[in-house]
Amino acid sequence: MSVQEFREFRERLNQRILSADNLSIKRFFALDTQAYNDGALDTPTKELLGLVASLVLRCDDCITYHLTRCVEEGIGDAQLFDTFSVGLVVGGSIVIPHLRRAVETLDELRALAQDDAENSR
Amino acid sequence: MSVQEFREFRERLNQRILSADNLSIKRFFALDTQAYNDGALDTPTKELLGLVASLVLRCDDCITYHLTRCVEEGIGDAQLFDTFSVGLVVGGSIVIPHLRRAVETLDELRALAQDDAENSR
Amino acid sequence: MSVQEFREFRERLNQRILSADNLSIKRFFALDTQAYNDGALDTPTKELLGLVASLVLRCDDCITYHLTRCVEEGIGDAQLFDTFSVGLVVGGSIVIPHLRRAVETLDELRALAQDDAENSR
Amino acid sequence: MSVQEFREFRERLNQRILSADNLSIKRFFALDTQAYNDGALDTPTKELLGLVASLVLRCDDCITYHLTRCVEEGIGDAQLFDTFSVGLVVGGSIVIPHLRRAVETLDELRALAQDDAENSR
Amino acid sequence: MSVQEFREFRERLNQRILSADNLSIKRFFALDTQAYNDGALDTPTKELLGLVASLVLRCDDCITYHLTRCVEEGIGDAQLFDTFSVGLVVGGSIVIPHLRRAVETLDELRALAQDDAENSR
Amino acid sequence: MSVQEFREFRERLNQRILSADNLSIKRFFALDTQAYNDGALDTPTKELLGLVASLVLRCDDCITYHLTRCVEEGIGDAQLFDTFSVGLVVGGSIVIPHLRRAVETLDELRALAQDDAENSR
Repeated sequence: MSVQEFREFRERLNQRILSADNLSIKRFFALDTQAYNDGALDTPTKELLGLVASLVLRCDDCITYHLTRCVEEGIGDAQLFDTFSVGLVVGGSIVIPHLRRAVETLDELRALAQDDAENSR
Repeated sequence: MSVQEFREFRERLNQRILSADNLSIKRFFALDTQAYNDGALDTPTKELLGLVASLVLRCDDCITYHLTRCVEEGIGDAQLFDTFSVGLVVGGSIVIPHLRRAVETLDELRALAQDDAENSR
Repeated sequence: MSVQEFREFRERLNQRILSADNLSIKRFFALDTQAYNDGALDTPTKELLGLVASLVLRCDDCITYHLTRCVEEGIGDAQLFDTFSVGLVVGGSIVIPHLRRAVETLDELRALAQDDAENSR
Repeated sequence: MSVQEFREFRERLNQRILSADNLSIKRFFALDTQAYNDGALDTPTKELLGLVASLVLRCDDCITYHLTRCVEEGIGDAQLFDTFSVGLVVGGSIVIPHLRRAVETLDELRALAQDDAENSR
Repeated sequence: MSVQEFREFRERLNQRILSADNLSIKRFFALDTQAYNDGALDTPTKELLGLVASLVLRCDDCITYHLTRCVEEGIGDAQLFDTFSVGLVVGGSIVIPHLRRAVETLDELRALAQDDAENSR
Repeated sequence: MSVQEFREFRERLNQRILSADNLSIKRFFALDTQAYNDGALDTPTKELLGLVASLVLRCDDCITYHLTRCVEEGIGDAQLFDTFSVGLVVGGSIVIPHLRRAVETLDELRALAQDDAENSR
């Protein structure tokens, strides 16, 4: 699934889920957004925390989401690979398949950003 | 993978696995069926337990299987979303990608049931 | 740790955590309480869902908490063992050590309830 | 908890659980014993499989049980540390605290075996 | 994804990851290879350990990798199904979907080996 | 177990493990230390990553270790509670028992630091 397909699926299903009007689910979704707002730690640091947590819990979609946000926040590849390395050592070799997909997603995000930059000139 | 494709894959591979004639595996498969029979708790409640356990353990195929069984047992959407909400709060935001796929599967199951109802008139 | 020691530790640390005044944490704690309120599913059923989720995720303190709530809600041993059986089949033999501690806790909760009943005559 | 205390707790609670007469739980316990019988793989190899699975799933009691069985089957320390090393690389640094307790348990088991040998002279 | 597609993806992304020149990641990859070398346990036994660990941790790509290595090491189906049975009993019914994919992969690997044998006559 | 008891147990068992002279285990331990060195991310940020990964993987000893390191690196309580909040939202209510023990450990570490400061006047 491409990053763009993931975004559309995520957006469509989130709306479907919220339309079910289950109060606990709605509050959880609100809380999930709020948790990454600037606080004692700034948003970029919190997104790195979300990324490493997603990596060790081996959740590909969560990794794609946080990688997207990290790129939006301007975090560089060296910082992302340092985050990957902590996740790899903590979580072990079962993290590697998710790391492969994460790096492929990262390369796709960088290519999309370059396309956008070229189109906006 | 559609619900129908999942059913065919599941059926085909279960037969392949059982044909290997490994006694422990065969007994486990028998036990896995028996565990959801009516007992002190009725089958629908046990299927909800199987569903929430599958959700927090983030096993998409298990979720599809138990959702199918829940729909067969006549459980309504409001009950299913309440089950989802418990799974979400217990298991956290890493459950969300599995919840998205669960809700898409649920909508597919409801559409299949409506098709069946219309065809049987 | 006895059930009574767990309750005191839980109460004391929950207050300490909430005193830190972290908004996301406070909202999560509120949501965690609300998720088990009567809804499309009643509270006893939701507590069984919380119990089986805790069992397959192998969280002893969560099991103790939900067992306590199940006993308060009047759920009988046969229903609880049916819940245990689903958790065991879904989660496998690594659940067994947690099942042992769960059953010991259940017996302790039943003994405490009997003491209370005798004292209140 | 010493190895001896673990054995007594395990034995006592297993009997308590089986006395509840829940058919699925009883069948699971029987299956759990049978799965390590000699088959295409011999019992020592299966116990090493049980040990590494317990290690990566980070279940201390399961590790203690399988270590006890491995020692009974005559498996040497070098083989056990090789098993630990696979578990460590697959499961990552979160396995380390369980590895520490495993090695302490192994040393206790070796000391108990030496005491037994000396007493039986 | 076929076994061949997996191999190509794995090879391509491993090279991409190593090209990032992150020292911890490079050392982890080296260690991950070395851990399965002959030692006190021989490579086939270590590969079975890697397989069962991958199964209970429910990592499909890891299972495909270790199954490939087990077939290369000449391990037979009966030994592999015994390994599956230990993984199933330890890890529970949530392992079943991964077992299905493992058995499909195993059949594919056996078919590829037979093709190779026929082509080399 | 107090922080001091944990440190002594950790130190003693780490030495025991390394004395077994298993090459893979020794390399893993070296890598585990190296992964938190200053790099593209500084050590304090990497320790926060290690802390949140330990929290969502629910490893109490790992949490104690990384909390100790975070305190040594001068990270304040507000930053630590922000890290806790991300771990809680990502990992769900099963993280709460580990959060309770983490906060108790943090308070113990702050008290130890104050004792040290008073003693060194």
